Amino acid sequence: MTIRALFFDVFGTLVDWRSSIAAGADAILSPLGHAIDCDAFADAWRGEYQPAMQAIRAGRRGYVKLDVLHCENLDAILPRFGLEELGGDAKAELNLLWRRLDAWLDVPAGLAALKKRFILSPMSNGNISLMVDLARHNGLPWDAILGAEIARDYKPKPEVYLAGCAALDLEPPQCLMVACHSSDLAAAAACGLRTAHIARPDEHGPGKGETGPSVPVDFAALDLLHLSQLLSRA
Amino acid sequence: MTIRALFFDVFGTLVDWRSSIAAGADAILSPLGHAIDCDAFADAWRGEYQPAMQAIRAGRRGYVKLDVLHCENLDAILPRFGLEELGGDAKAELNLLWRRLDAWLDVPAGLAALKKRFILSPMSNGNISLMVDLARHNGLPWDAILGAEIARDYKPKPEVYLAGCAALDLEPPQCLMVACHSSDLAAAAACGLRTAHIARPDEHGPGKGETGPSVPVDFAALDLLHLSQLLSRA
Repeated sequence: MTIRALFFDVFGTLVDWRSSIAAGADAILSPLGHAIDCDAFADAWRGEYQPAMQAIRAGRRGYVKLDVLHCENLDAILPRFGLEELGGDAKAELNLLWRRLDAWLDVPAGLAALKKRFILSPMSNGNISLMVDLARHNGLPWDAILGAEIARDYKPKPEVYLAGCAALDLEPPQCLMVACHSSDLAAAAACGLRTAHIARPDEHGPGKGETGPSVPVDFAALDLLHLSQLLSRA
Repeated sequence: MTIRALFFDVFGTLVDWRSSIAAGADAILSPLGHAIDCDAFADAWRGEYQPAMQAIRAGRRGYVKLDVLHCENLDAILPRFGLEELGGDAKAELNLLWRRLDAWLDVPAGLAALKKRFILSPMSNGNISLMVDLARHNGLPWDAILGAEIARDYKPKPEVYLAGCAALDLEPPQCLMVACHSSDLAAAAACGLRTAHIARPDEHGPGKGETGPSVPVDFAALDLLHLSQLLSRA
């Protein structure tokens, strides 16, 4: 079966959430007189990401958008940085940082090359409006916005990947999940999708990211331009 | 409230379904020895469109994609053209014509201009995969694919328009419904959206289309480039 569509993880795989959140938080907090370790702040905020989705995945809580979880997670970490009294405006500004994350340098050209041959969509836990803003901020040429909000559940639940395939009328082997996280790829492969790993060795800070897959994948690429080359040979 | 997003009707407003279906049907049927009136064929097929959705709107039938209704509607009209024995391959080819409809000439440049200032999405009864194929065929630069499939119901049900606003975290007055059908605009306005009419005087054949709105609208434009001008002055 020929690959027709490429599904992309976004946070980490396409955008450098850590540097963007750290720089953005510094720009918001420093003028307010808060001198904190912004890298640690970014790590702490992102650290709440997986646990926050768990109640929804487990069915103990109905679906809410990732925006809502980001707000709750921010409230959870502020005391650790002495920011429990931070005002609502500053908190709202911080939350909007997730909509202005910068893409890794290979992403715009990589997606443009891949778009010539494949349908492209995010397959992210981010909600539709967040994905739209990230795409407009970085010029990501999506054909559709699939992912968690369509399925009203969160990856790595099979329903999320399979809802994306169904929306495009494609069988799972016609869809290639692209991510820098082996766990995401393992879950997609279990649903029958094909998989491509992208190395993002600095996702969690210099030298702290996956340099290659720890699970079997169909393609292992250094970046999106490399993936485009690998797919043109496949 | 500032307009942030533009929602577009697609069949008629952005693409010339009648000429495209007629020409495509002729290209499929003539080589098979079937000489029919292809304009009448296009009109008949489209004529089944509204009634077919009614069972779903009324709740007598669960949501199925417009692709499915197009197939059923084709079977319904084939006997009228002496084509009741048409083979499955030819029928499948005919159905795919809805994914290769040509845009009106102003559409690519109009959407490109509008995209600079607004989030753009179809708000169509067409399903996601159909919208993706139409966009790739015509270079339509959508930010997201909202519409019937997201809401699992069909326009003019309020749920469809409101699901689009909710997906973008926008209030209805922040969204502008753009269509060449006054009935679509009346339904959107009843939900609180703002409205723009586009003249498509030849939608149903030469001189057979709405030259202007028959209901109150916020903007009445001759084409998408004119709409872009009107919005830049608003």
